[in-house]
Amino acid sequence: MTEPRYTLTLSCPDRAGIVAAVSGFVAQHGGFIVEASYHTDQETQQFFMRQEIRANSLPFDAAELRARFASLADEFKMIWQVSDSAVKKRVVMLVSKQDHCLSDLLHRWRSGELEVDIPCVISNHQDLRSFVEWHGIPFHYVDMRDKNAAFAEIARQFDICCGDVMVLARFMQVLPPDLCARFTGQIINIHHSFLPSFAGAKPYHQAYQRGVKLIGATCHYATAELDAGPIIEQDTLRIDHGDTVEDMVRYGRDIEKAVLARGLRYHVEDRVLACGNKTIIFR
Amino acid sequence: MTEPRYTLTLSCPDRAGIVAAVSGFVAQHGGFIVEASYHTDQETQQFFMRQEIRANSLPFDAAELRARFASLADEFKMIWQVSDSAVKKRVVMLVSKQDHCLSDLLHRWRSGELEVDIPCVISNHQDLRSFVEWHGIPFHYVDMRDKNAAFAEIARQFDICCGDVMVLARFMQVLPPDLCARFTGQIINIHHSFLPSFAGAKPYHQAYQRGVKLIGATCHYATAELDAGPIIEQDTLRIDHGDTVEDMVRYGRDIEKAVLARGLRYHVEDRVLACGNKTIIFR
Amino acid sequence: MTEPRYTLTLSCPDRAGIVAAVSGFVAQHGGFIVEASYHTDQETQQFFMRQEIRANSLPFDAAELRARFASLADEFKMIWQVSDSAVKKRVVMLVSKQDHCLSDLLHRWRSGELEVDIPCVISNHQDLRSFVEWHGIPFHYVDMRDKNAAFAEIARQFDICCGDVMVLARFMQVLPPDLCARFTGQIINIHHSFLPSFAGAKPYHQAYQRGVKLIGATCHYATAELDAGPIIEQDTLRIDHGDTVEDMVRYGRDIEKAVLARGLRYHVEDRVLACGNKTIIFR
Amino acid sequence: MTEPRYTLTLSCPDRAGIVAAVSGFVAQHGGFIVEASYHTDQETQQFFMRQEIRANSLPFDAAELRARFASLADEFKMIWQVSDSAVKKRVVMLVSKQDHCLSDLLHRWRSGELEVDIPCVISNHQDLRSFVEWHGIPFHYVDMRDKNAAFAEIARQFDICCGDVMVLARFMQVLPPDLCARFTGQIINIHHSFLPSFAGAKPYHQAYQRGVKLIGATCHYATAELDAGPIIEQDTLRIDHGDTVEDMVRYGRDIEKAVLARGLRYHVEDRVLACGNKTIIFR
Repeated sequence: MTEPRYTLTLSCPDRAGIVAAVSGFVAQHGGFIVEASYHTDQETQQFFMRQEIRANSLPFDAAELRARFASLADEFKMIWQVSDSAVKKRVVMLVSKQDHCLSDLLHRWRSGELEVDIPCVISNHQDLRSFVEWHGIPFHYVDMRDKNAAFAEIARQFDICCGDVMVLARFMQVLPPDLCARFTGQIINIHHSFLPSFAGAKPYHQAYQRGVKLIGATCHYATAELDAGPIIEQDTLRIDHGDTVEDMVRYGRDIEKAVLARGLRYHVEDRVLACGNKTIIFR
Repeated sequence: MTEPRYTLTLSCPDRAGIVAAVSGFVAQHGGFIVEASYHTDQETQQFFMRQEIRANSLPFDAAELRARFASLADEFKMIWQVSDSAVKKRVVMLVSKQDHCLSDLLHRWRSGELEVDIPCVISNHQDLRSFVEWHGIPFHYVDMRDKNAAFAEIARQFDICCGDVMVLARFMQVLPPDLCARFTGQIINIHHSFLPSFAGAKPYHQAYQRGVKLIGATCHYATAELDAGPIIEQDTLRIDHGDTVEDMVRYGRDIEKAVLARGLRYHVEDRVLACGNKTIIFR
Repeated sequence: MTEPRYTLTLSCPDRAGIVAAVSGFVAQHGGFIVEASYHTDQETQQFFMRQEIRANSLPFDAAELRARFASLADEFKMIWQVSDSAVKKRVVMLVSKQDHCLSDLLHRWRSGELEVDIPCVISNHQDLRSFVEWHGIPFHYVDMRDKNAAFAEIARQFDICCGDVMVLARFMQVLPPDLCARFTGQIINIHHSFLPSFAGAKPYHQAYQRGVKLIGATCHYATAELDAGPIIEQDTLRIDHGDTVEDMVRYGRDIEKAVLARGLRYHVEDRVLACGNKTIIFR
Repeated sequence: MTEPRYTLTLSCPDRAGIVAAVSGFVAQHGGFIVEASYHTDQETQQFFMRQEIRANSLPFDAAELRARFASLADEFKMIWQVSDSAVKKRVVMLVSKQDHCLSDLLHRWRSGELEVDIPCVISNHQDLRSFVEWHGIPFHYVDMRDKNAAFAEIARQFDICCGDVMVLARFMQVLPPDLCARFTGQIINIHHSFLPSFAGAKPYHQAYQRGVKLIGATCHYATAELDAGPIIEQDTLRIDHGDTVEDMVRYGRDIEKAVLARGLRYHVEDRVLACGNKTIIFR
């Protein structure tokens, strides 16, 4: 277990002196910077920054850090936040019947690799109840015959759980635009193709028909437009003419779970900053 | 230099006994099979096969091999051909101003790695004349202001050269449908994206706008429909938010040349069999 | 679930006519070959072959197939076997405390992707008992304080279970040479480095000290010499200077489980043929 | 062509406030930081830093920048340097008969991708003279029958050329320890294996004998101990049992040239910082 850290992420219009001002602020309180990353978007001239500070190097807590940083932030017109590694993010998972992503994430969670809380798993099927409950995690079934009611219930559960992020771990249901809008930047989906190729239904069938030589998976934020949200992580895998759709589905599971696990990790470690419909990933 | 080989490629409706019949035919003449590959397309139930036979293990030449094989081929309704490694394929290259693919292929050719003849290089610019001519290869300039005349001239040069395959090594010109139709399966293009993503113009700009986390390249046969022909080879490469379009162009050159070199090699070694709009690659 | 198949694997001194003879034998009984692969080792001039035959295309069962094939096999001095996809391989897993490989393999098993029987899991720790037993799989604890007794017990359990293959899924114990010798080609280990680099203990520490830019994992058959047996599968992953040993351990788990899963799959599908201290993998 | 930049690289004992001090220094003169990277080595608690500053954002030149920075550097006990992108590094290449790396690097140079000067190419064979001279680059032949004299001549030519870096582009000669010592951190070698596997002669033969499933290449600084210097860049490529040593040599060329090109680029862009026998690569 790593020592507690505060993670400061911010964006603001680019200009000379931002790094100096922020580093100066941290240094002035004796703060020890463990990791630091910067980026300027060329199109918008927006500056992005992430700093991890050793929590016990500062003489005050996260609340006080936020309070003191606010005036500097105002001066540079920053959009910013400070997160505290001692406060775990709360991840609500939505699944259907397939459990390769869920199984992979729960293993990472129970082995301590993924340092989050999982207040519940929600599903439109009962198949995975026993596996989830074996982990001591509540399992909520939602009936999808009434979609409006089902999505309202999902939102309600997320609120009750004080969820920070909703993971569609092969949920196989299209979320309504208003839900996506309400939780912008909080819903992470895994799509089983290398987007923008093969958006929508049955991407492996589409890939088979087109005769591509690689298949892929994409982890992205869900937005109102299907499979068009900001991409967090992607990967591809070589296939050949001998591979059937079923083979692709099988190989694909391995990329899907790897890509989702990396994407979710970046998100919960505050490594993902939105920049229009793109993401900056400070690894 | 490897020993001379005959390469038999064929396709026919699938049924039991094809491999036995063909292997039996080869064995009956003492033929030594060096490499053998098979595939059945599930959708069409078409069978595909490739065998490399040591030329000097047979008591006759390629012409006689073809003559004797013909009746067996008829029996199974085969589409087939026998190529002789002693007869090099003739590759005509079309280039514009960028020479990374050309330079890469010419190196492979002059080092003996790519065992083909290159009767000429055709370009709509004079920039690469000196480099091509240093290799002792004729360089033909075509004036693109009159596109019809230019493409007619390209076809004429290809015919004069007895070209087997035309390589669009970043030629940057869209070939007219009739030319593509006339040389079906003989024109190899390298497109600088992971198709079907980002077909058409400026794929790296499209990739930048979409915020993908990998870029790619695709080697495919040119057909009447732009960037939609059968895919021979593809690859991808990881990028990140810090990469500009110029960075992508730079990284992309390395995948483009690698993918084109592999695709062309498969083609000239008769490893590519067409199957509708898909390819079977017998590596 | 695929249709039942017989898989014929063989090796024999190379000569003309082997493929014809075997294919002829299969064809003569109406056998339908679904997949076929060949290889000749250049150093030993040994020929290797694998054919999958649709079981119901033959008018007899696996026993009869074996009986009839024997005389042909003798003629060519073949080392050979026929396996029947309807008879699942029995995989005994040995684990310690870390469960990333076990968890991954059990998921593949319970989802039906890995078509084997798992008669038991053996461990020198009690940590994973509950997880294994949730799957309905017997869990045997062995006490490693008396190593001789422990390894005797492992061998005994393997025999009782009629085990076909023993998987060291991060077992973290060096098997005695006599056990390796007794089960040659039946014990699969996953080593957490790209062998031959960093054999032995603490490979990630070794990798960190050497400053390599990629880490890897190797799935191999255990032999008397530690980490020196025939390699089945390997893969590597990019790291950088910022990655600590702990980071490598974390990333490494993902390659370890992927490499072991692929290697085990090749083995249980009879795709691995031994050739001295090397393997032929007919994918 | 990118705008001129000053690149400041430094290392010093880690403590709070370094980033603030350096950023403050730059900001105080109106300097605009374009790219910034940091790293602390956990074992030595040494801090490493690289900053690219837009040259025309500062009111003085590189010499003045160095003069002014010196006192800050002293305070923190920094080992540091400032390089100016307007002053190109001078790269001397050493080759033998194989030209895949040379051809690749010369293409990158003549296309403007690799922004260096190449004052000469040195070889112990005449084979590549014509190709090098076509580029307008002087070609020096050294006679290797007297190794002492030959290496003395190489050092002399490097000095005459005011060389910054010597690239062993498959030079195939072991440099004497004193030469390596004299030009520590200035000699870049490409070794055709994934080090530390298969150091020394004939690595592809070694790889073939061991039966590995991936081959690799390593770009590293030459030191007195053969193939044991700090690693700059590595990569691997999948092979299979069907690949002969000759196939590995062929595939290997593509990784060798890619890995060397990336490694050299990192070096000439001052992205490589030595840390004991390891490197920090600020990409």
